[in-house]
Amino acid sequence: MATTVPFTKGHGTGNDFVIVADPDGELDLSADQVAALSDRRFGIGGDGILRVVRSAVIAEGAGAVDAEWFMDYRNADGSIAEMCGNGIRVFAKYLEETGLASFDAPQRIGTRAGVKTVSRSDRGFEVDLGDFRIEDDDVLVRTRGGGAPRPGSAVDVGNPHIVVALPSEQELEALDLAAQPQLHPDPPLGANVEFVVPADPLVTDGVGSISMRVFERGVGETLSCGTGVAASALAVRDWAGAAAPDRWVVRVPGGELGVRVTADGHVHLSGPATLVFSGEVTLA
Amino acid sequence: MATTVPFTKGHGTGNDFVIVADPDGELDLSADQVAALSDRRFGIGGDGILRVVRSAVIAEGAGAVDAEWFMDYRNADGSIAEMCGNGIRVFAKYLEETGLASFDAPQRIGTRAGVKTVSRSDRGFEVDLGDFRIEDDDVLVRTRGGGAPRPGSAVDVGNPHIVVALPSEQELEALDLAAQPQLHPDPPLGANVEFVVPADPLVTDGVGSISMRVFERGVGETLSCGTGVAASALAVRDWAGAAAPDRWVVRVPGGELGVRVTADGHVHLSGPATLVFSGEVTLA
Repeated sequence: MATTVPFTKGHGTGNDFVIVADPDGELDLSADQVAALSDRRFGIGGDGILRVVRSAVIAEGAGAVDAEWFMDYRNADGSIAEMCGNGIRVFAKYLEETGLASFDAPQRIGTRAGVKTVSRSDRGFEVDLGDFRIEDDDVLVRTRGGGAPRPGSAVDVGNPHIVVALPSEQELEALDLAAQPQLHPDPPLGANVEFVVPADPLVTDGVGSISMRVFERGVGETLSCGTGVAASALAVRDWAGAAAPDRWVVRVPGGELGVRVTADGHVHLSGPATLVFSGEVTLA
Repeated sequence: MATTVPFTKGHGTGNDFVIVADPDGELDLSADQVAALSDRRFGIGGDGILRVVRSAVIAEGAGAVDAEWFMDYRNADGSIAEMCGNGIRVFAKYLEETGLASFDAPQRIGTRAGVKTVSRSDRGFEVDLGDFRIEDDDVLVRTRGGGAPRPGSAVDVGNPHIVVALPSEQELEALDLAAQPQLHPDPPLGANVEFVVPADPLVTDGVGSISMRVFERGVGETLSCGTGVAASALAVRDWAGAAAPDRWVVRVPGGELGVRVTADGHVHLSGPATLVFSGEVTLA
C-alpha cells in the first residue's frame, strides 16, 4: 500500500538530510526506501535520512532510556550509520522548531553511538562528541597529481580520520580530491582524510583557526564532515603543543564550524542547522 | 520580504525540475533565487526551474497567444533556457495533475523556442520538436583515454548535437565522460555529444533501437537529454539509409524514450513524466 509521509529537508554546512517524524516507531523504512528518498533526481535527495523516533519504542533505544528522542540515521545508500556531527544539529533544530523538545536546557539525544548531549550555541547548536584519541604513528597520504606523499595524523573521534597539513590556501584549493587519496599503511576500515591549512597567525584572541577540505571514505569530497572538522582541529591543536588553545574555528566549503575541548577531555562541535523546506512524498 | 512559495518536484527519465505555479505572472524570480532553489544541498535541487505562467501575462508570451500556458524554463545556474525535451513532459504532467489543462486533445505550450504541441502517449507524453537538420560534414570526437578520435554526425534539433557511434555496450559503459570530449573542428557555440550503440538487430517489428550516453555542454554527463535522444535516433536513422524505420526506442541511463519522425518532417519525443513530491519553500 502506498503511504504518504510528511518530511522536512535540512542541512548543516551543506551536509543535507531528509527528516521524517515517526514518534511512535510505526514507519519501517527499508534500505531501498531510504535509498529512493535520498536519490537527488528520482527522490527528495540528501546525504542521509534522519528518522525522529522516541527511544522508548525501538530496540536500539534500550541504551538511551534517559533520552526522549532517538536519531535513527541512515546513509543515502540505505545502510545504517552510527552518528553524524552535522546531522544531529539538524535533528535538534527540527525538534526545536516543531516543539517536540526544548533546548532551553541541554537535551540528551539517543544515537547508535550512544547518548549525545546537544545544546543551543551562538553558532546554532553544539554537540558533545565525547572522547577522542590521537595515534602516535603517522600515515602517509598521496593525492592524485599531488607529488610526494605527506604525513597525516590519525585521529579517532568515534570514527577514524587522517589529518594532513598543507602549507597554503592555494595548495588546499588546487588539491585534486576527485580521486580517492592513497594511504600507507592503509587503515583496515579505511578513514576519512582531511586536508588542513592553519591560519597565519594560528591563534587570534585565544581561538585557533584553520581551513579544511575532506574526502569521506566511500563517498568522495563533501562540503562538510562534522567529525572530520573536530578531528582536524584536534590534530592541529596537537601539533601546536602545550600552548595551543582549546577553542577552534574551522572553515569548510559548506560554511564555518566551532570546535571546543573541555576539561573532561571531551570534544564539542558547534555549527548552524537550517530547515529548508517541508513537503509530502509517497513511499513506493 | 520573505515569500513562501508552493512547489512540486518532478523528473523525466532522471532530468529533474522544480515546478512553480505562477498563473498570473506575479513571481519575479531572480537568477540568484533560481540558483538557490536549484541547489541540491542548500535548496530544493534540480536541473532547472519550470515556472507555469499564462502566455497572456508575460512579454515572452506575445508569440504564443494561442497557447494558454507558457513554460518559463531556467537552468539551474539561473540563466534563461529556450526549451527542454524532458522538462516539457514534466510541465504537461503538472498541468494535467493540477487540472490546469486537459490532454484529452493535444495541447499547445509556449516556450522561448516557439509553441510546442504536447500529446498524451503510451509512454506518458509526446512533444513535437519540429524540424531537424543533419550536417554533411563529420566532426571528430576524442574522449579521455578513448584512443583515436571517432567521427560524429552533427544534428541540429533546435540546439546542436554531435552523435558518435560505438561498436558495443561494453565500450559505451567503459567510456570516461568525467572529462569534456574534445571536438574537431570545435563548433562555435559548442555542442552536446551523444555516444550511441545500435542494437543488434537494429530494427525489431519496425522499430529501431539504440543505447545512448550524453555529455551536455557546460554541465557534464547527465542521466538523460531529451533533444540528445532525438538527435541520436535521427543520426542512426540517417546512417541506416533509405530502409530505416521512422520509429525508435532510445535507452539512456535514466530510462527509455521514444522518437518518431512524421511525414511533415518533424521529430517527436515521447517518454515518462513523474511528479515526486510537493512542498513549500521560503524565498530568500
